[in-house]
Amino acid sequence: MKALVYHGPGKRAWEEKPRPVLEEASDAVVKITRTTICGTDLHIMKGDIATVTEGRILGHEGVGVVEEVGAAVTSFKKGDPVLISCITSCGRCDACKQGMYSHCASGGWVLGNTIDGTQAEYVRIPHADTSLYHVPGGADEDALLMLSDILPTGFECGVLSGAVKPGDTIAIVGAGPVGLAALLTSQLYSPAEIIMLDLDDHRLAVAKGLGATRTINSADGKAVATVMALTDNRGVDVAIEAVGVPASFGVCQDIVAAGGHIANVGVHGKSVELKLDKLWDRNITLTTRLVDTVTTPMLLKTVLSGRLKPRTLITHEFKLDELMKAYDTFGDAARAHAIKVLIRNP
Amino acid sequence: MKALVYHGPGKRAWEEKPRPVLEEASDAVVKITRTTICGTDLHIMKGDIATVTEGRILGHEGVGVVEEVGAAVTSFKKGDPVLISCITSCGRCDACKQGMYSHCASGGWVLGNTIDGTQAEYVRIPHADTSLYHVPGGADEDALLMLSDILPTGFECGVLSGAVKPGDTIAIVGAGPVGLAALLTSQLYSPAEIIMLDLDDHRLAVAKGLGATRTINSADGKAVATVMALTDNRGVDVAIEAVGVPASFGVCQDIVAAGGHIANVGVHGKSVELKLDKLWDRNITLTTRLVDTVTTPMLLKTVLSGRLKPRTLITHEFKLDELMKAYDTFGDAARAHAIKVLIRNP
Amino acid sequence: MKALVYHGPGKRAWEEKPRPVLEEASDAVVKITRTTICGTDLHIMKGDIATVTEGRILGHEGVGVVEEVGAAVTSFKKGDPVLISCITSCGRCDACKQGMYSHCASGGWVLGNTIDGTQAEYVRIPHADTSLYHVPGGADEDALLMLSDILPTGFECGVLSGAVKPGDTIAIVGAGPVGLAALLTSQLYSPAEIIMLDLDDHRLAVAKGLGATRTINSADGKAVATVMALTDNRGVDVAIEAVGVPASFGVCQDIVAAGGHIANVGVHGKSVELKLDKLWDRNITLTTRLVDTVTTPMLLKTVLSGRLKPRTLITHEFKLDELMKAYDTFGDAARAHAIKVLIRNP
Amino acid sequence: MKALVYHGPGKRAWEEKPRPVLEEASDAVVKITRTTICGTDLHIMKGDIATVTEGRILGHEGVGVVEEVGAAVTSFKKGDPVLISCITSCGRCDACKQGMYSHCASGGWVLGNTIDGTQAEYVRIPHADTSLYHVPGGADEDALLMLSDILPTGFECGVLSGAVKPGDTIAIVGAGPVGLAALLTSQLYSPAEIIMLDLDDHRLAVAKGLGATRTINSADGKAVATVMALTDNRGVDVAIEAVGVPASFGVCQDIVAAGGHIANVGVHGKSVELKLDKLWDRNITLTTRLVDTVTTPMLLKTVLSGRLKPRTLITHEFKLDELMKAYDTFGDAARAHAIKVLIRNP
Repeated sequence: MKALVYHGPGKRAWEEKPRPVLEEASDAVVKITRTTICGTDLHIMKGDIATVTEGRILGHEGVGVVEEVGAAVTSFKKGDPVLISCITSCGRCDACKQGMYSHCASGGWVLGNTIDGTQAEYVRIPHADTSLYHVPGGADEDALLMLSDILPTGFECGVLSGAVKPGDTIAIVGAGPVGLAALLTSQLYSPAEIIMLDLDDHRLAVAKGLGATRTINSADGKAVATVMALTDNRGVDVAIEAVGVPASFGVCQDIVAAGGHIANVGVHGKSVELKLDKLWDRNITLTTRLVDTVTTPMLLKTVLSGRLKPRTLITHEFKLDELMKAYDTFGDAARAHAIKVLIRNP
Repeated sequence: MKALVYHGPGKRAWEEKPRPVLEEASDAVVKITRTTICGTDLHIMKGDIATVTEGRILGHEGVGVVEEVGAAVTSFKKGDPVLISCITSCGRCDACKQGMYSHCASGGWVLGNTIDGTQAEYVRIPHADTSLYHVPGGADEDALLMLSDILPTGFECGVLSGAVKPGDTIAIVGAGPVGLAALLTSQLYSPAEIIMLDLDDHRLAVAKGLGATRTINSADGKAVATVMALTDNRGVDVAIEAVGVPASFGVCQDIVAAGGHIANVGVHGKSVELKLDKLWDRNITLTTRLVDTVTTPMLLKTVLSGRLKPRTLITHEFKLDELMKAYDTFGDAARAHAIKVLIRNP
Repeated sequence: MKALVYHGPGKRAWEEKPRPVLEEASDAVVKITRTTICGTDLHIMKGDIATVTEGRILGHEGVGVVEEVGAAVTSFKKGDPVLISCITSCGRCDACKQGMYSHCASGGWVLGNTIDGTQAEYVRIPHADTSLYHVPGGADEDALLMLSDILPTGFECGVLSGAVKPGDTIAIVGAGPVGLAALLTSQLYSPAEIIMLDLDDHRLAVAKGLGATRTINSADGKAVATVMALTDNRGVDVAIEAVGVPASFGVCQDIVAAGGHIANVGVHGKSVELKLDKLWDRNITLTTRLVDTVTTPMLLKTVLSGRLKPRTLITHEFKLDELMKAYDTFGDAARAHAIKVLIRNP
Repeated sequence: MKALVYHGPGKRAWEEKPRPVLEEASDAVVKITRTTICGTDLHIMKGDIATVTEGRILGHEGVGVVEEVGAAVTSFKKGDPVLISCITSCGRCDACKQGMYSHCASGGWVLGNTIDGTQAEYVRIPHADTSLYHVPGGADEDALLMLSDILPTGFECGVLSGAVKPGDTIAIVGAGPVGLAALLTSQLYSPAEIIMLDLDDHRLAVAKGLGATRTINSADGKAVATVMALTDNRGVDVAIEAVGVPASFGVCQDIVAAGGHIANVGVHGKSVELKLDKLWDRNITLTTRLVDTVTTPMLLKTVLSGRLKPRTLITHEFKLDELMKAYDTFGDAARAHAIKVLIRNP
């Protein structure tokens, strides 16, 4: 089969690889019908993620059809249309029993990381019973692709960990794909104000269309002052960090109200300064989280009911054998005005 | 009347001051029968707390008897024995309605800070109805003195914010008065293991007597390794920071398990390094908090029922006019083996 | 002044009464600019509510302007436009400190019940600081009138107690004013399906317009079967009882899913049968609640932000001196197609 | 092998049955080393539980050693000492993913009910990976036997559903095995007062020894008045129903404070009267629950740490081949002063 393969920093190829086979009784092999590229894949391409080794097929998002299941799989059979979770979970270890699938003793984020991923014609899914979801009849599978990673990430790491609630004033720092997913899903809890911060006016315009009540281009260094002015100097109830650099994390610290939440979603490559001298008495809750995809069933329901419309995040479409080109486009997101690219097969 | 007065860094005096009078209709004047000294008072004496100005009567803890109440006070009358909360709350601002008394728009920590405090014969208590508590008949008032600040601080900022629950393995970094208060109150939630870390063997021995299941002297720099070994390399469910310096906060980051909590109790004078590069995907919750004393009524019940015995924290006793000496003793806590000093009047 | 006065079962009059004066230092007197009639007022008129005695001015909802405040009132002054809460709370008793204002030791539901109410030119509001809310500049005061009782009642007793969450399938039994308020406010939590049950097709049509995804006229006795069919025989996550009779409570028991919630909002005049033989192992949570109005500040924000539009519940308008006629219309709600009547002064 | 077999109402036999074999890949066969008898088994013997058919081996509690595992089992192997949960869970259905194992689509309470149980030399355990627990080295296996059912039942259905918290005043109606398990486990949350009600003075004496702060023999019909007097007419924060008859449920309704909880643990054979006319405005939360055993890992930790000592519930011991006699004793619990009987093999 054909697959997108990582060959060390800066090197990727669309090449022939052996089609995956069942290795464990709990495995399934899934034929990919839709996949996409994640910001994390770009990090991998830069060589930032040490666990990804040469020869690895990338990709941890996908929708497909079950091709084959192992003897222990009971919830899925050949021919079932499925949503693939970016997080693999065994359902039986301590972490899984607590709903923390991200730290599954034999799973977590493995697809396109420590085992081959979804940017290929076929993928092997370990612990299939607890790592795949049935696609309901009549569902828009393009929309569901957003549920592999980006929607649960924005929702769990940003909205739920940030404890967004009706009437809140929240700020989302970073209007990239995950920030926008947080924007979409935050509206499930009806905050009164959603302030979106970014350096890119196009993305801010997109955010406005998706429900942001205010947008602030933080390029001028006045973002903190602007947010404080907007909130009568009180700050925001929830600040969601969706970039992953010290500066944006710093903004979150400066704009959070007493009693508020900072929900970190961004992937950080270095440590940050935490201003405990200012925050120690401010009753702040700060959270970090790798998505658990524990809310995927709920998100499926809200998408099916029409309350959540994640299809709006898809800006470009490619065929599976155009994956190299799709990487070029997604890698140049600012110029291409790309949010999420949909890659179809066939 | 006589009072302990701050006269700038390093200077304090036991001197004559005018007896306080009612200023607002919601005020009460309380005759002090018991007070104590807090670690924060020592910080003030070093000049670390800019809001405290020369001439201020110190002290934010106390038990006493109501001497006089303003026209708007309905819950207390002359002669009522009362517990004074270190936090003054109006009960009507947004913060108070949310139970965040620490950020009361016209209160918070003001006693012995921005208004005169409890280390005196009399003290004026603003918003008396919502800042005083009735001492129940038959209560041990010495024990209740610990409920002015130290017990709710250890409980709210450490135990509740840390979400200690039955079966947990927790670590408390710092066996000073507040760390020991966290130790005592954590047992209300029945953790399976309570690991206490400190540099002082005497305090660790005290901790052992108060319920710690393990004690670790962290002087040798191996505390992190020891905790990890004790927990099969998993780390602790809750790490309570009760010192207020970067090093102890660093220990908390290094020993917290995936999905765990870091509850900051310590008062920090500078920022700290937050290792987001290591923690971003660890599902950590980190909290800061100034005590709200919202649990004071509950703590009163557990003390009265005998489930909580805070009297064990009192190591020394003085008379009110020995306050200068009491400061000397408490200021040399390590050598004096002092935890809390009880100051009685008469 | 003129007021609507209860003179025993079936008897009411629009008559002259003495204008209220300050009785306690914490009182305010408010000039009424808008009031309305509640279903509870109709119950009073039937003589169902023993605490209401002859000569009582009715009404517990209102918007107005502060006319006078007592010496202890600090948050309001003459001329302030205010929203009157149907629940009076002192802010200092045990119940109030726990946010259960409905059981305030010296408050709760007293207006138009044990003290004179809002269907008059002026009303005395005890504990004004904690029982009134500032009307924000630019607010639609007609809309805010719905926040005196009906919106917090539907929201707190139905939506919050029922723990409605994103993706849920919920049923609201009863499309009267409070059922519709639950319908409106439930959408703050984005349930996937909202099934509305009533006997009146007009009210169901209104419900459809306000966001119900399904409506069922339960007159044919097949409502339970219909709901079960709609939910694949699983039942609903939350059943909100908004009628107050045994039959509608019975429906809730029959349609609630395992692990689900029954939130009672209705005022019941007799006991009901609880099918514990069927429910004991179904992991059900059943709640009762008198509104606390603890969410009024939050609801104010969502109304101001435009996320909640309670004005849609107002079907009729009258002048204050038409209150007798307004009662006639509201008392014949089915024929008049009345939901809420707005009574303006002047 | 030998087993205790149900042969219709009133009829049981200790007889030869075929040794169970693996039926599904996820099964395990466990050699029983300890089992016990539950009150539910007595209900079965009366013919009250329709799902139990003739020829069924009874018993849903046990500790044993794994004899054999199916191909899909990954967490257990032959020779592992294990605790058997009374609830079988697949770990992958909707209910299991929400932690509601009691309503597992292919599990729940099946052992000794719809499939053969643990009162035998061997038992087949479906979904072994998610229905068995490793016995930690050094554990007291007699004590752990109490974790199969009775401790999680008292804890989850009584203590957790009742939301017992530090400082609470709680009442437990019924001092049978499950009521006493609620008594033991409630202390993990440090209530200030635990009032135990029963008709049997011996059981009340046992309760006193296990931590009850007050005991009331309710035979004289004055229990409600006594509880109200003890609580200054306020009632209890939590009332736990651990009997399963209308009268005891009625007591719970009469003694619960405003804002309080009624947690039903008892198995009810008929419906009860719910006094909604009195409770509709009392802010009560009423829960029902079949144990999920989701807290078993936590309870294991608290038993190992010594904070919970369930061995105290064992009053009698028998050998496996004395099971008929054990039933006689347990069936005559009042006269035999039996709480839990331990049945050992060998």
